[in-house]
Amino acid sequence: MAARFTKDQVKASFAKINNWGKWGKEDERGALNYITPEKRAAAAKLARTGAIVSCALPLATQSGPDNPQPVQHMMLHVGPPVASLDYFAMAPHGFAFTHLDALCHVFWEGKMYNGYSAREVGRFGARKCAIDVTRDGIVTKGVLLDIPKVRKIDYLEPGDAIYPEELDAADKLHGARVDEGDVLLIRTGRHLRSKAKGAWNARREGLAGLDAACLPWLHERKIALLGCDGVSVCSPSHYAPDFEMPVHVGALVMMGVHLLDNADLEALSAACAKHQRYEFLFAMAPLILERGTASPVNPLAVL
Amino acid sequence: MAARFTKDQVKASFAKINNWGKWGKEDERGALNYITPEKRAAAAKLARTGAIVSCALPLATQSGPDNPQPVQHMMLHVGPPVASLDYFAMAPHGFAFTHLDALCHVFWEGKMYNGYSAREVGRFGARKCAIDVTRDGIVTKGVLLDIPKVRKIDYLEPGDAIYPEELDAADKLHGARVDEGDVLLIRTGRHLRSKAKGAWNARREGLAGLDAACLPWLHERKIALLGCDGVSVCSPSHYAPDFEMPVHVGALVMMGVHLLDNADLEALSAACAKHQRYEFLFAMAPLILERGTASPVNPLAVL
Amino acid sequence: MAARFTKDQVKASFAKINNWGKWGKEDERGALNYITPEKRAAAAKLARTGAIVSCALPLATQSGPDNPQPVQHMMLHVGPPVASLDYFAMAPHGFAFTHLDALCHVFWEGKMYNGYSAREVGRFGARKCAIDVTRDGIVTKGVLLDIPKVRKIDYLEPGDAIYPEELDAADKLHGARVDEGDVLLIRTGRHLRSKAKGAWNARREGLAGLDAACLPWLHERKIALLGCDGVSVCSPSHYAPDFEMPVHVGALVMMGVHLLDNADLEALSAACAKHQRYEFLFAMAPLILERGTASPVNPLAVL
Amino acid sequence: MAARFTKDQVKASFAKINNWGKWGKEDERGALNYITPEKRAAAAKLARTGAIVSCALPLATQSGPDNPQPVQHMMLHVGPPVASLDYFAMAPHGFAFTHLDALCHVFWEGKMYNGYSAREVGRFGARKCAIDVTRDGIVTKGVLLDIPKVRKIDYLEPGDAIYPEELDAADKLHGARVDEGDVLLIRTGRHLRSKAKGAWNARREGLAGLDAACLPWLHERKIALLGCDGVSVCSPSHYAPDFEMPVHVGALVMMGVHLLDNADLEALSAACAKHQRYEFLFAMAPLILERGTASPVNPLAVL
Repeated sequence: MAARFTKDQVKASFAKINNWGKWGKEDERGALNYITPEKRAAAAKLARTGAIVSCALPLATQSGPDNPQPVQHMMLHVGPPVASLDYFAMAPHGFAFTHLDALCHVFWEGKMYNGYSAREVGRFGARKCAIDVTRDGIVTKGVLLDIPKVRKIDYLEPGDAIYPEELDAADKLHGARVDEGDVLLIRTGRHLRSKAKGAWNARREGLAGLDAACLPWLHERKIALLGCDGVSVCSPSHYAPDFEMPVHVGALVMMGVHLLDNADLEALSAACAKHQRYEFLFAMAPLILERGTASPVNPLAVL
Repeated sequence: MAARFTKDQVKASFAKINNWGKWGKEDERGALNYITPEKRAAAAKLARTGAIVSCALPLATQSGPDNPQPVQHMMLHVGPPVASLDYFAMAPHGFAFTHLDALCHVFWEGKMYNGYSAREVGRFGARKCAIDVTRDGIVTKGVLLDIPKVRKIDYLEPGDAIYPEELDAADKLHGARVDEGDVLLIRTGRHLRSKAKGAWNARREGLAGLDAACLPWLHERKIALLGCDGVSVCSPSHYAPDFEMPVHVGALVMMGVHLLDNADLEALSAACAKHQRYEFLFAMAPLILERGTASPVNPLAVL
Repeated sequence: MAARFTKDQVKASFAKINNWGKWGKEDERGALNYITPEKRAAAAKLARTGAIVSCALPLATQSGPDNPQPVQHMMLHVGPPVASLDYFAMAPHGFAFTHLDALCHVFWEGKMYNGYSAREVGRFGARKCAIDVTRDGIVTKGVLLDIPKVRKIDYLEPGDAIYPEELDAADKLHGARVDEGDVLLIRTGRHLRSKAKGAWNARREGLAGLDAACLPWLHERKIALLGCDGVSVCSPSHYAPDFEMPVHVGALVMMGVHLLDNADLEALSAACAKHQRYEFLFAMAPLILERGTASPVNPLAVL
Repeated sequence: MAARFTKDQVKASFAKINNWGKWGKEDERGALNYITPEKRAAAAKLARTGAIVSCALPLATQSGPDNPQPVQHMMLHVGPPVASLDYFAMAPHGFAFTHLDALCHVFWEGKMYNGYSAREVGRFGARKCAIDVTRDGIVTKGVLLDIPKVRKIDYLEPGDAIYPEELDAADKLHGARVDEGDVLLIRTGRHLRSKAKGAWNARREGLAGLDAACLPWLHERKIALLGCDGVSVCSPSHYAPDFEMPVHVGALVMMGVHLLDNADLEALSAACAKHQRYEFLFAMAPLILERGTASPVNPLAVL
């Protein structure tokens, strides 16, 4: 599929979707500011049946095509007489891990969200826009846009791009309008495809995801957070190799929208279909890793 | 303060609070089974104002009296041109970390919850009752029992014990009855004391917490999970050194009640006081670490 | 091949080869005490040509049949402008790592070398007989017994056992008598076989090595250290599954002989053949990891 | 003390001491090429008495002024019945660790030794001049220049600079001429000072070491390797903050001389004084960490 925008048009769109200064020049939370207490209280009302699903993959401890650096899990003590204790270590940004990217994760022209210098990230971590800005959690309305359902297929293929009109179609079809302060979750069916055809190396062979032309749509809807079962952008991007991550830049740097990567949306897709409802209470609580650039997460949806 | 029970009485109480087999002989989730979808939906209604607080300490990356083995946090890459990436490693059971103990964490007479052999935990982790039984999260009603408020003091002292009648007093005072499927959070004021008097070595010098005589109360109320700003039990236990963790054994092994250790309940205490309400929507999503004995967590309360 | 000794005979031999108390009841260095300054000075004279070879495998950073837990190697910084920095992590006892076992590594009837209690090893490491007793290095005469050369084959097969008369044959054939204070290196050709037939899972499928009947020979010769391209013992041992490591117990616990596991003796075999000399200056410098149970090593031979 | 050279003179000296191409344009071993088999055989003759000392600090597992990132040492299993096993992790370049810098560790104008591009070092390590070029060990003649002995003091102070005429004086005084292929060890007395006055933060408060004016002397003598109880250069360098490591650049990049940092030369100093001899057999065997930028080491001296 072709790029909707030229590379220059993508770059030009960055100016239009730029939220720098919108929440003050000291702000480090970006679009999370859209989530007000009232928004949270309203979202809680969506937990009507109390059905709950996780949107996370298990922490992968074995290497695989997507997982050259698996989680290290070791026992430090095996009881009895006393207790069993363990230890784990991980690099959360991996393609096999459900994680939340902090706003400091990527840069554009030497800057991160709100104009902070990339130099605020150094050997000892991030002094600005680290993952701990999410310390009080992210609880709001969640909306699932289930793209394979729109296309009436099982799953998208690596490299497939999603365009803004499909986002419109999805929220119409689902009857769940994406609004200010929502968490938007985009399903491409990646993990269903993995089960059907075997795992593949996402870094090398690509993932389905959003075309950069979706950025203005996301900005207009004032989403608080974007999640995907891939890494948001269709990859390879239409602008590779010299401009790999237009959606990361647009979301993290320009709009201040945190990105939830590599979610597992299969159970959520089934639950939404069963309840015929694509909006729900979304709750996620990143670890409070001061100066960190990401956290592994286990996002929850309550319908 | 004296022990309410003799050591033999504690052991005898284990038989009375034993939930083995209650949810089937294959069960690994224990008292989490008390949380039904209906319970969750009802709990969501408690998120009235949408005010939210975290109940977690930041992941401590510096050593301290309680933290001989701090979280290792390292940068793997510092951008630009590209992205910033990091890595972290931790042993989650430490006294400085807010974490959830899996039911496989401790044993009694060679067994864990539901009668599984302690041998189900080996060098490569736990085959039964690992932390991943909580993969769909823990969302239910939470109740804070704010013991210093009951005693009209700022904080308890290390070693101070809490008795069942105080639990009664707390839930009467607060107007928040602890019921089936609730998460019960006990505040001792540990972290306020830390700020006032400096940190101390909890392992050596002790912590305030529940006397073993509280176990029948917890069992009768059918709580789903017990959390504390310490490690639940008053320590040193009244039965040290040969019987250090009667509440761990009673809760994890006998009742199948997961334990949330080292929570930070200061912000929650303030929020409950402000809203004059001690019950709330509780949401916690442990990492899905298959075979793990614990997970670091960031529990959330929405009032 | 059959066991030479019954299990009871092996156990009986332990009494005969026991060196406990021989170097004082406080001793933690065991047979390293055989290496005197005079021995070292004499060994240095063997470095006649100055040819040098390593006896170590590279630190394996990729998983493989023998390497479920590879070395973690990560870059912490990639310069310029400044420097490049890295980080590594490992569990040195793995079958893929050339390492030196400390005397605290295994136990017999609750005791380690010199009668120290196994309880001297706890969660925080070894208080007795840790790897740091080798802090001043091991420099002495080394002797290679090249068993495939004796048998006129390329390599032994997994599970093949070596008997004492072959040790005699080897030192006669090679003209390099194994004497007091020597490091004895036994080549089975494991890594040549790996190249020819592919790597195999040594833990499951076994390794060639010494039959337990060799223990009295080793004791009589007063070796200071035993090394092998496997793990010394033929495995599975003739006494598996309930008595897996008779040579580890005999060497580490009874004689106080440190064990060098998983050496790579291919280059040394070629060098010895070329120089028609099987004795050489041996130099090895374990890392000084206080309380550690092993160290990765890179042993050197100078001919 | 003042700089002997201006910054421009230091940079000009780089051209004169440049060894690029000297051992072929594919070379990655640099001045280690000075060590021939004959050199090694001759060096072995210096092991006259067989007295041996380590030149390494223990691996520091506790944090301290010089050690913000101590070695992580954890037990993975504590026997009996079976074995005790452990795990360790470290960033070897720390100021508290005796380590060998690979030639890829620093860069000058985008290049490392022999003109290789700094881009040969990436997120997955070094493709050129990694630490594994030392896989066959470094065995040669070692010479100790004991600067406090020359100055008739106990130890140098942080920031103190050593000039070339002192190197002359040292080798005259000691009767141990530094020659082609030698390992030169410079003692400043850092660790004796640490014992006397307490540890200090070397990164912030500096270390005694060589003035950049020593570089031509080192080049002329054709040393194979330079070691120090600090980090070779006096720090802060006379050219800080914009030119911090003139000796690192001169040695590693220009001459291809590997650097041994943070050695412990106290025992060697005592042994040399006792034997009235400042030359010895030097043996060091870095771990074979392919693509690594350093290795922890335990260098040995045999007198």
